Parts: sequence; structure tokens; C-alpha cells
Amino acid sequence: MDVTTLPTPALVIDAAIVRRNVERMAAYAREHALGVRPHTKTHKSLRLAAMQLAAGAVGLTVAKAGEAEAMAQAGRGDAPADLLVAYPALDPSRANRLARLARRATVRVAVDSAYAAEALAEAAERANGTIGILVDVDVGMGRTGVQSPVAALALAQKVDSLPGLRLDGIMIYPGHVWDPPDAQAPALAAVAVILGATLALWRENGFEARIVSGGSTPTAYQSHLIPGLTEIRPGTYVFNDMNALRGGFCGLNDCAARIVCTVVSEAVPGQVVIDAGSKTLTSDRCIPAPESGHGLIVEYPDARITKLSEEHGQVDVTACSRRPRVGERVTVVPNHICPCVNLHDAAWWLEPGEPPESLVVDARGRTS
Amino acid sequence: MDVTTLPTPALVIDAAIVRRNVERMAAYAREHALGVRPHTKTHKSLRLAAMQLAAGAVGLTVAKAGEAEAMAQAGRGDAPADLLVAYPALDPSRANRLARLARRATVRVAVDSAYAAEALAEAAERANGTIGILVDVDVGMGRTGVQSPVAALALAQKVDSLPGLRLDGIMIYPGHVWDPPDAQAPALAAVAVILGATLALWRENGFEARIVSGGSTPTAYQSHLIPGLTEIRPGTYVFNDMNALRGGFCGLNDCAARIVCTVVSEAVPGQVVIDAGSKTLTSDRCIPAPESGHGLIVEYPDARITKLSEEHGQVDVTACSRRPRVGERVTVVPNHICPCVNLHDAAWWLEPGEPPESLVVDARGRTS
Repeated sequence: MDVTTLPTPALVIDAAIVRRNVERMAAYAREHALGVRPHTKTHKSLRLAAMQLAAGAVGLTVAKAGEAEAMAQAGRGDAPADLLVAYPALDPSRANRLARLARRATVRVAVDSAYAAEALAEAAERANGTIGILVDVDVGMGRTGVQSPVAALALAQKVDSLPGLRLDGIMIYPGHVWDPPDAQAPALAAVAVILGATLALWRENGFEARIVSGGSTPTAYQSHLIPGLTEIRPGTYVFNDMNALRGGFCGLNDCAARIVCTVVSEAVPGQVVIDAGSKTLTSDRCIPAPESGHGLIVEYPDARITKLSEEHGQVDVTACSRRPRVGERVTVVPNHICPCVNLHDAAWWLEPGEPPESLVVDARGRTS
Repeated sequence: MDVTTLPTPALVIDAAIVRRNVERMAAYAREHALGVRPHTKTHKSLRLAAMQLAAGAVGLTVAKAGEAEAMAQAGRGDAPADLLVAYPALDPSRANRLARLARRATVRVAVDSAYAAEALAEAAERANGTIGILVDVDVGMGRTGVQSPVAALALAQKVDSLPGLRLDGIMIYPGHVWDPPDAQAPALAAVAVILGATLALWRENGFEARIVSGGSTPTAYQSHLIPGLTEIRPGTYVFNDMNALRGGFCGLNDCAARIVCTVVSEAVPGQVVIDAGSKTLTSDRCIPAPESGHGLIVEYPDARITKLSEEHGQVDVTACSRRPRVGERVTVVPNHICPCVNLHDAAWWLEPGEPPESLVVDARGRTS
């Protein structure tokens, strides 16, 4: 079997590009004395997590308890796993699972409420373990996170007062900054002001933030512009996608994950249909270019994937000088690779000159 | 374990509503002498397919070869499975798998190109089997389907000339008709004109359409307005969703599938965050009400799920007189239940007075 005979739609991963992406981020982080704690939501793969750890990652980031349980197996020799749950895991099921996991791994959880701190403390006490806590501070994303330095101090005091918890630091997520790299400085300066004020207030009150965790793929290479960060949590950088490409954060040659599709219909004039719909690509729009369609067809850059149903991708080919024909295979770079990977039980790992190798998506579907 | 302690996000299915939805469609079809061939893409479950067959379904509809292989096991006693692949399964992998399946089950495939007919004929000959063919005629959806009665006749002649194939009839999909039931008649009259002309041309040329397959959930109960249909292929009706509800095709009490969520953050003013994002609900907008958000929170109908990231659902609660609090559980009716079910390895089947029972999503992720 080679890539031309894989059943489609097939998620294929270019191993050489992945290695280059991982190494580039590791080199940047070394240069600026930052830790890399990759968000494993992008690949959900123990093998890729191990590759990131081998390249120097200080630990792994996950979103949910189920992902933490899966990724705890991606150890580095005898060292226990070091996991950050970048999510307020406050319900009894998640809190209990993480507390149990904390007996054999370093588990930290980011929280933005006293409720979450108390729930995790109770679970940790029941399990006779210790959970590290990062206080989630909103730096402009408006999703989660306490809303002021004063609120961050109050939550630090709360965490510090609770048994079973260890106050480890602060988490920020500048996920609202979608400027291209050369325009990010002003937005990141605003982030730095909030973070700086919070760190100062903590210091004045005797609290140390040993970990200050930030970063996202778009802002990753500008992380040195935010004083005080100790580590970054990029996820998408390992594969990249159309969000990263059209945002100006990577080139097409840095996009490691693609979907090989078959053209299954050309009956409607000016249109072809590929066998990848929302069950393969997700319905996610491209954030920096919402009207650009549902991904790039590499071989036909003038084509536009205009509409997805679950198993059909309708492609407008009227702008193409040469058009794909029924039965032909084409390659799509998805808009948003993370939820796309989550739709696939396995990807195909492509080493130059070798047959495709199945790469299990170990943590697929771990939403709880 | 009861529904109040299930780990969230949890896909729960109300058994009594499912039974009522299945029975209502079966009764309508009996009244109008139509067969029901449910599209199993909605539930992807052998157990629910068996329930539909027990209620009188003439067979099952699937989209992909992998789904056909899974659903072939949902037999009715000793009768072989009767499957329609409502998809141009023309690539070598799919064609060969379906041809092999056709040796032990009735397999029909809808095609809209001579290419597809030839590919399936070659595969059927190699497997020493016979594949039934429906000619896919576009009645206005503009996705797949031949574009005229003349093209439908030409494709019928092609199919009829090929060994390994059996010309069984015509497939239409009025998936573009989203009018509420009381306004559908004019749109369906236009559909009927195209279908009628095609059937007449086939008859004039000696071709019989023993099967004329139509329908969708929105138009299902108006199928008697399209003369010539022999069967309908509703899928969503088994569970319903916000598309069906806001389209006027069902009531809230007919929505059988819901997501139980936990509120994990209330840090941002006027907003709460639920633990269901695009990895749980999909990013699909509501077709009849694109600005209505990402599903209905049943307990807080004035709340609006404004933004999804993979694991976060941001909910605007400024219009709520009473607001959900962190740690609280809420119930969401998703916009589009079919791809939502595809994100879950299993749902919870809720019989009145009994503990939740795991319902495996047997054909989840079968995109090839």
C-alpha cells in the first residue's frame, strides 16, 4: 500500500515536516530560555508527545481528564509524566480522576474560581494526593480566567489555604491575538501589562509564580515579548493548518497534516464533490479568512470548497484553468487541524520512501 | 449511576421519544403506501437500526462503504440486509468492499456518472456479485445528481449495458427544501416536475424504476406530494435537533438526543462556559436560524451559546432572569445531531425509571 491507494478520505502526516516543526519551536524556546509544554489536543498521539518530550518539552498540556489519563503514558524514561490540564476540571468525575492520576504523575490544573479550587482540593484529599494549581488569568480572550490582578490574588490566597493543593503559578492564553507576527507586538504589550500587574501583586503579597504559562501557536514565536513567561503551550505548530497559513504564521511547506480525498461527482456544472465533508474536515471556518472556504486543495489552489455536508465537500471549480475530474485524488489542508484529527481513529504517518504507517489517535474523543 | 452523575459532556437519548418518533414516521408511511429506508447516519447504531426495521422499514440507508459493512449486521431475522448507499462510491476501495458485501446482502448504490457505473461494474464482476443501481437525479439541491431527464436516461442506458449491475431505479434528495411543512407544497411541486419528466422518459424507453427513493427529515411528512416515490430516507427524525425544531418540523418534546453539560466557568461577566465545545456539539450552525447560536440550553432558553472552541462553549447569559452557576449541569439540544453523534463513542440510553445504559455508536467515524 502506498499513499496513492489509501482508502479516502485519509489523514496523512508528513513525518519530515513534523520533525522540522517540533525542532524549530524547541530551538526558539531554548534561545529565549522558555519551556515548551505542547498542547497535545492537536495530535492526541502518544508517539508525537514522546517526540516533543525528546526534543526538550518540559511537560505536556491537555484539556480534559481523559486526555490527561491517555497522555500520562507518554513518559520520558523513568521520569513521571508532567501534565497541565489547561481547563477548569471542577466536576466530581474529572476532579476525582485527576486526583487519582496525581498520585503517580505531576498534575496541574488551571482554575478561575474558588468553586474549582475547592472541588479539586476535596478530590485531592480523598485520593491522598496533591494537585498543582495555576490561576487562570484572562488577558483579553474573554473565555475563562479571573478578570483582574486583585481577583488573581484572591484566588491564589484561596488555593494557598486549601489542603491537597499546591499553588504553582499563573496561566494565560492570548488566543485572541490573531495578528500576523510582525503586528503582534502592541497586542502582546497589552497582555504583558495585565500579567505584569498580577505578578507584582502576587510578589507584594508573598506569592511566587514558579510557572507562568502562556502561548498559543499564532503568538508562540513572539512569547519573548511577554516578560515573566516561563513556558509556552503551542499545539497546532506540530502540524499547522489553514488558520496558521492564512494568519501568516507558517508556509504551505510547514503544513504536515493533509486529507487525501477522491472526487466522487462532477455532475453539477462548475462544481466537483470530494468525499470529505464535515465528518472529515469539521465545519470550522478559517479564522483569519472566514470566506475562504473549507480548506485548501493543494493541487487546485483556485478551487474553493464552498459547502460541506457530512460526507460531501462541494468544490467550486469555475476559477480553475484545469479542473479535477471524477475519480481523481486531491489533497486538502484543513482549516483547523485539531478537531479534524479528533474525527479520525488513525492517521497515516509518511516517512520518505517508506509505506504509510498507521498512527493511532490515542486520545481521540476524550471529551470528559 | 443515574443521569445526574454521568461524566459530562454526556450524549443522552430518551428511549420513549425515539420510539414515538420511529412509530410516527412508520404510521405516515403506511398511510401513504411508502417504504421507509431510514438513513442510519443519524444514530449509527445497530440497535436503533433494528428498532426501525422492526417498525416496518424496508431497508437501511448509509453514506459510506464502512457504514454499509457495519449496518449489514442489523438484520431482521434470517432476511439478508437491504442497504442503499446514497453516495457515489466509485473509488476502488469502496467499490470493491461494496461488491464483496453484495454477495451476502442486497446492496444498492446511487450514482451520477458513467465513471461510477463502470467502476462499480468492474468491482461487481471481480467479486462475482451484483450491485443494484439507483440513478441520482438532482432535483434542485445542486450537490450531486444528473442534471436532466435526458442525462438520467443516458445513465440508465449505460448501467443497463454493464455486467454486474442491476438498474433498480432513481434516487432524489430534496435537501434544499427547508420551508416549514405548510409552505413546502410549491417547492415539492417543482421537485415532482423533474422526477415526473424523468420517469416518463424512462418509461418511453422501456426502463422501469422499481425503486424511486426520496425524502429527508424536513420534507418527510410531505412525501405524498411527490407522485411516483416508492420510499423515503429520513434520518434525523429518529432524534430530531435544533435544525428540525427551528425549521418547524418537530417540537422540543420530540428532541430525543441531548448533551448533558457542566458549567465550568463564570469568571467573565455576563457569560458562563459549558464543557461542550466543537468536539462535542460540532461547529454546525442552525440552518433555519444561523444566528441562534450553537444549540438550545433547555433549562435556560434565554441563554445563547455564542462561541465554541474545542472544549469550551461560551454562553451569553445577559438575557437570563436566573443564571446558571459554576458547577451546575445543563442540557443542550444540538443544532445538527448527526455529526454530533459521530463525535461520541457511545451515548446513554435512558429508559424511564432505569439507570442509563451505554449505547455504542457502532458506525462512528466510518468515513471511507
